[in-house]
Amino acid sequence: MRAHWSSVSSWNRDTIPGFQNPAGIFIRHALGETYGDEAHQNRLQLAADALNGTDVFDTNRARAAVDEAMADDSTAGGHGMSGMITDSSTLDRVFSPFEVALLDLQGKILGVPVSDLLGGRVRDRVDFSGYLFYKWAGHPGDPDDRWGEALDPAGIVRQAEKMIAEYGFTALKLKGGVFHPDEEAAAIEALAERFPDVPLRIDPNAAWTVETSLRIAERLDSTLEYLEDPTPGVEGMAEVRAKASMPLATNMCVVAFAQLPDAVAAGSIDVILSDHHFWGGLRRSTMLAGIAETFGMSLSMHSNSHLGISLAAMLHLAGATKNIDYACDTHWPWKNPEDDVIVGDPFSFVGGSVEVPTRPGLGVELDRDRLAQLHQRYLDCGIRNRDDTGYMQKFNPDYSAVAPRW
Amino acid sequence: MRAHWSSVSSWNRDTIPGFQNPAGIFIRHALGETYGDEAHQNRLQLAADALNGTDVFDTNRARAAVDEAMADDSTAGGHGMSGMITDSSTLDRVFSPFEVALLDLQGKILGVPVSDLLGGRVRDRVDFSGYLFYKWAGHPGDPDDRWGEALDPAGIVRQAEKMIAEYGFTALKLKGGVFHPDEEAAAIEALAERFPDVPLRIDPNAAWTVETSLRIAERLDSTLEYLEDPTPGVEGMAEVRAKASMPLATNMCVVAFAQLPDAVAAGSIDVILSDHHFWGGLRRSTMLAGIAETFGMSLSMHSNSHLGISLAAMLHLAGATKNIDYACDTHWPWKNPEDDVIVGDPFSFVGGSVEVPTRPGLGVELDRDRLAQLHQRYLDCGIRNRDDTGYMQKFNPDYSAVAPRW
Repeated sequence: MRAHWSSVSSWNRDTIPGFQNPAGIFIRHALGETYGDEAHQNRLQLAADALNGTDVFDTNRARAAVDEAMADDSTAGGHGMSGMITDSSTLDRVFSPFEVALLDLQGKILGVPVSDLLGGRVRDRVDFSGYLFYKWAGHPGDPDDRWGEALDPAGIVRQAEKMIAEYGFTALKLKGGVFHPDEEAAAIEALAERFPDVPLRIDPNAAWTVETSLRIAERLDSTLEYLEDPTPGVEGMAEVRAKASMPLATNMCVVAFAQLPDAVAAGSIDVILSDHHFWGGLRRSTMLAGIAETFGMSLSMHSNSHLGISLAAMLHLAGATKNIDYACDTHWPWKNPEDDVIVGDPFSFVGGSVEVPTRPGLGVELDRDRLAQLHQRYLDCGIRNRDDTGYMQKFNPDYSAVAPRW
Repeated sequence: MRAHWSSVSSWNRDTIPGFQNPAGIFIRHALGETYGDEAHQNRLQLAADALNGTDVFDTNRARAAVDEAMADDSTAGGHGMSGMITDSSTLDRVFSPFEVALLDLQGKILGVPVSDLLGGRVRDRVDFSGYLFYKWAGHPGDPDDRWGEALDPAGIVRQAEKMIAEYGFTALKLKGGVFHPDEEAAAIEALAERFPDVPLRIDPNAAWTVETSLRIAERLDSTLEYLEDPTPGVEGMAEVRAKASMPLATNMCVVAFAQLPDAVAAGSIDVILSDHHFWGGLRRSTMLAGIAETFGMSLSMHSNSHLGISLAAMLHLAGATKNIDYACDTHWPWKNPEDDVIVGDPFSFVGGSVEVPTRPGLGVELDRDRLAQLHQRYLDCGIRNRDDTGYMQKFNPDYSAVAPRW
């Protein structure tokens, strides 16, 4: 369980010179969502302090203020909040929830959905893919969850059946890098046999060498819609891409604008899996979409765990982005419906897709009781930094995080 | 004299489902400005027809509608409306004035300046450079204009003195490619002697070979802020850039998103001179700014002739764009103050800079009387297509447009 930071801003219309809120609504808060790592939260607080009094329409100046605040930051760590150390931009990562909150507030003030502030909807619904994970029936010491065990091809197929039955997904992704590559390839083959019309993807999180990547790519030649991050780094990815038949996707070797030039020059990737939490918010993610289109890359959307605020943000972004070329990732099914911070449960998956909210701003409201409950859970759990490797070593002391592993 | 097309839209709040205009203002028109070539105007009409009933916040769908209309377009020509045939995108060129008009209308409806819709102002004033031209005292058969003759270094210096005295510019650009490169280099040297603290640029419109470009670059080594389009094409530009000491700028070899990958791969340019008329409007120009920043290129702004609507658009765009790295071009001084279509003369050049308008939308209003007068001039002049070469051949029948010339 990871806690999510919710921006509760003190901005209101009094800070917007000359602007009359048409509906007379006093807007009490704007919503943004990001990760809960301690170092990241420290930086968020620095950013929040720097933003006091910011004009809500001046997202450019707000970003500059956060940039300045980060220059004084001496916080260590917090770069691995997604479960792995990345070269994502500190500024983009820290500013993202504020940018989303500013757009939420702009939309609420103006009476238009965030998608309109991004150029308007090009689709009314956003397609998501079902995200499959190898897992125990439950964490050791905890009760089993509702998904059951999935440690082999049959277990993965069962998980996919349940997920498709409940959400209607028309594309599936398997998080790999857990078992020997051939076992994971067998799981993909089992999925292909069970769901012959469903596009399939596998993401071994850079656990394979170039040679292994090419061998598995050949084995899954006619089966994969795309192959995600089989191997580390832009050079390795470029080597695989030069010979593999299917598109190569990434949310590891390119997670920041600064990494794009080398990846483009090396020819490393076909599909960028964007993520507004890493890419500086919604407007900069729109810009990433333009870069992808300009440089002949496809686009989809990465997901780490997220709550309803970020799902709303993802929907507005994908709703206003022409070149969402593949169904987006989401961890939504892995969250218990009651574990959220928004009012009600406004998102309905039909055929794997969700409607883009049309109410002003993000179109979701903060439920302060639910927020208080989840905040209490955060306080009680004692976890302040994500440490996947340390958790694994509790059960397998010999475990170490190496990439590539096979 | 070239006519400018003004978008007079039929959109009003009745076409915006569910939207209440807070101020109760019935917005009669939105403003955009573009070129007057006949073929371009034909396409604009197709686009205007395709946009009837468009939701003004759906700029993405509006663009798609224009894209569809262009697919059916069989109009020949119109690609040389800026005075030279370019590879600019037809869709971007045709959609641009509508996108500006939609943002103008959004801003007027919402009560915010267009700069806010682009992320907010990062500067309150925009710096422009003085744009110097070789010229006769007047067109043959017409009275002399107020600028006088400039056919040699002394004439160019006189022109610069007058322009700086009137507008306060702190940077100067000479449009070259007219006389032998050494004569134009001598003009730059004369400007440098007269204005030792003013950054200087020359733009020979690709009139030089690679060899000539390198020879002049060496001669003007310590004098030029940047060298613009000395030679044609991304390969030629890359050859010059590899050896020249100053940054290389372009608004010729890269005037469309589709041209960026080759230019980046070849290492052709340091400075992109953006122009929202070519790059699909203001939001896509913001995206271009992001691409420039991402791929390590600088940014400034190209100008062809323009009236007050486009100056307002340029101000909002530059006002909201962080990486305007050089003073922007403008033809503003070359236009008689009375020859405009907006109410009054709201732009004041102080020290070469102009304030970003802060009123809703673009912040300028259409003057229908002035529009009618300029429209009558357009009807009377009989010119329907820009033909610089044909005009030159009236005075020099042997003239032909060749690049490179020297």
